[in-house]
Amino acid sequence: LNRQLAALPTTIFTVMSELARAHDAINLGQGFPDTEGPRDMVQAAADALLDGRNQYAPLTGLPELRRAVADSNARFLGLEIDAESEVIVTSGATEALAASLMALIEPGDEIVLIEPLYDTYLPMVRQLGGVPRVVRLEEPDWTLPREALAAAFSPRTKAILLNTPMNPTGKVFTPEELDFIAGLLDTHDAYAVCDEVYEHLTFNTPHVSLMTRPGMRERCLRIGSAGKSFSLTGWKVGYITAPAPLAAVVAKAHQNLVFATAPNLQRAVAFGLNKDAQYFKDLAADMARKRDILSAGLRGVGLTVLPCEGSYFVMADITPLARGLDDVAFARMLTEEAGVTTIPASAFYDPANGTPPRNLVRFAFCKQESVLQEAIRRIEHWA
Amino acid sequence: LNRQLAALPTTIFTVMSELARAHDAINLGQGFPDTEGPRDMVQAAADALLDGRNQYAPLTGLPELRRAVADSNARFLGLEIDAESEVIVTSGATEALAASLMALIEPGDEIVLIEPLYDTYLPMVRQLGGVPRVVRLEEPDWTLPREALAAAFSPRTKAILLNTPMNPTGKVFTPEELDFIAGLLDTHDAYAVCDEVYEHLTFNTPHVSLMTRPGMRERCLRIGSAGKSFSLTGWKVGYITAPAPLAAVVAKAHQNLVFATAPNLQRAVAFGLNKDAQYFKDLAADMARKRDILSAGLRGVGLTVLPCEGSYFVMADITPLARGLDDVAFARMLTEEAGVTTIPASAFYDPANGTPPRNLVRFAFCKQESVLQEAIRRIEHWA
Ligand SMILES: CSCCC(=O)C(=O)O
Ligand SMILES: CSCCC(=O)C(=O)O
Repeated sequence: LNRQLAALPTTIFTVMSELARAHDAINLGQGFPDTEGPRDMVQAAADALLDGRNQYAPLTGLPELRRAVADSNARFLGLEIDAESEVIVTSGATEALAASLMALIEPGDEIVLIEPLYDTYLPMVRQLGGVPRVVRLEEPDWTLPREALAAAFSPRTKAILLNTPMNPTGKVFTPEELDFIAGLLDTHDAYAVCDEVYEHLTFNTPHVSLMTRPGMRERCLRIGSAGKSFSLTGWKVGYITAPAPLAAVVAKAHQNLVFATAPNLQRAVAFGLNKDAQYFKDLAADMARKRDILSAGLRGVGLTVLPCEGSYFVMADITPLARGLDDVAFARMLTEEAGVTTIPASAFYDPANGTPPRNLVRFAFCKQESVLQEAIRRIEHWA
Repeated sequence: LNRQLAALPTTIFTVMSELARAHDAINLGQGFPDTEGPRDMVQAAADALLDGRNQYAPLTGLPELRRAVADSNARFLGLEIDAESEVIVTSGATEALAASLMALIEPGDEIVLIEPLYDTYLPMVRQLGGVPRVVRLEEPDWTLPREALAAAFSPRTKAILLNTPMNPTGKVFTPEELDFIAGLLDTHDAYAVCDEVYEHLTFNTPHVSLMTRPGMRERCLRIGSAGKSFSLTGWKVGYITAPAPLAAVVAKAHQNLVFATAPNLQRAVAFGLNKDAQYFKDLAADMARKRDILSAGLRGVGLTVLPCEGSYFVMADITPLARGLDDVAFARMLTEEAGVTTIPASAFYDPANGTPPRNLVRFAFCKQESVLQEAIRRIEHWA
């Protein structure tokens, strides 16, 4: 069997979710909302099933969804995108990421990654024969170390994989940081895979896409997620925006990986993307409130909360409560004894890239306010 | 960009479907039914959207669907499958194939393939660093050349990729052929990826799975398709049945490629798989009738129809009508002049494996009888 794949541990999300179930714990581990997405979208998906379009969708997606993705790029980012040739609908952002990397990587190519990182990045890059060059953000402010980043680029660099708003840190990259990255891409003639699934989830901080910075339009594959933008993570509908010559190759990867995505879900997502700006504002405001409730509660029980300006997640320094345990042991103890599940941050670090921090865990705050409050009460009671 | 992927031509299915649209031709190219699947399944999928389970499904699939897949293996093939550890739900059979190959292949491994073949097989094997060893079936009876097959196996063989019932030929492998293949797998300690998406579409011929042959239970990854078994190709729900140690590695590939599949579609497919045997009998009988109508019509206009015992497809020898043209030029002419679209068979042959036959085209008969009859009338009128 494939040794690299066989050696991968079970994903930390599954491990912690199972532990949560076994101990009847509140699950602030895996990032998914505990409420449903917009009722009108769900109804649109149900209606769309019943009117006779349940055979293969076109390879790159239904025209109405590609149009809606292009329009949404224009409304929110000022990007002019050709719906015909520059949008590809995928079965979720995970597939979008796999197809984008597959389109770019030739064995031996170097891919620059930023740590802490989402758990499919490294195995996908390695599976495709890519060589990861990992740069670590500096806590507690998730500072981008510019010299180290510049040093990670080389004549063999094919692309950077950039996640903003960022999971697991909640960091939103600033225009200055993006321009620094853009400079490196220009100098090294490299591409960027832009994982922007939390694009509509920033808190008093605008989301800025690398694709909008000067010269970057032709270098970026930008990935969005209906799951994250509409609190419907189960639907697994994603989309890639990329210059036509790149999109054409991504389409071939998509053809071999999945081929097409359920038409009724695509039609409902098109309906969702056409919602007015207020919907997206409300989504972000609601999530900001949840971040505030959880962060205040964690501070109240004595934890240090790291800065978070976007995504579903915030990191906390567990030192005051950890009784000398590392993040993995602490996360296990918190599930078993307090009944609250988190993700130990070391899971987001490359084992091949030195010692990870062992004093951080990630909390998901994309949960009902009453659930967040109950989680805080449980930790308080236990502490 | 990835050179191998960039060099791939646009899939023949998209090329011919677009040509069909441009000429308002009847599309007997791409294989999808022109009617809807069972109304009660579609309704079940719509109902399932509305009761609040639209967040991530578990990585390997919903328990109710894994249970239904295991039960269906027991009912139809007499296979005892553990629903917990031996079933993985995927976003369609294309993803199932990609994940299975990813789980098996280490760069340099040889994969035995049988020609003519489905168009994602070769690029996926090559993308993963596998080395294809292609064996060609002999027309007009799609005879398996046993000596050539045995010669294709070597100490470096990792697996065979076996499609039965077979697209594009309509061949259903016999128990004797399967046992011959089983012997080679035993001798060479190799696996089989069994693409059995047309398992319920055989015509007066039982479908026999390699997985049921002596010693093969532990060597096979068996792929099924809700799209094909329920005439709902757009849903993209597939499933893999494999021994637990293999399934565990496939799950990791699935985790990195897509992660999970829409819960409402999974629940509706579970409902479908639990239908009584009559549903599956009727499906096959209906498709047999369509094969008969199309085959008789093609013979009536002077074509030679090759044997077909399963799938959506039948191959025809175009020589009597081809006016000296090859299959590609003939298929184009038939679309433009007669208004009937097919797939030229040479598209199913490896360009690196010698000259393909140029006298065959593939007709899809998974269409309404009136449509098949109108297609025949058009060819008759044109011929
Ligand atoms: C695909 S399961 C993980 C969900 C998620 O994005 C996270 O928890 O980080
Ligand atoms: C995935 S599009 C092709 C459908 C099909 O199986 C075929 O036409 O061979």
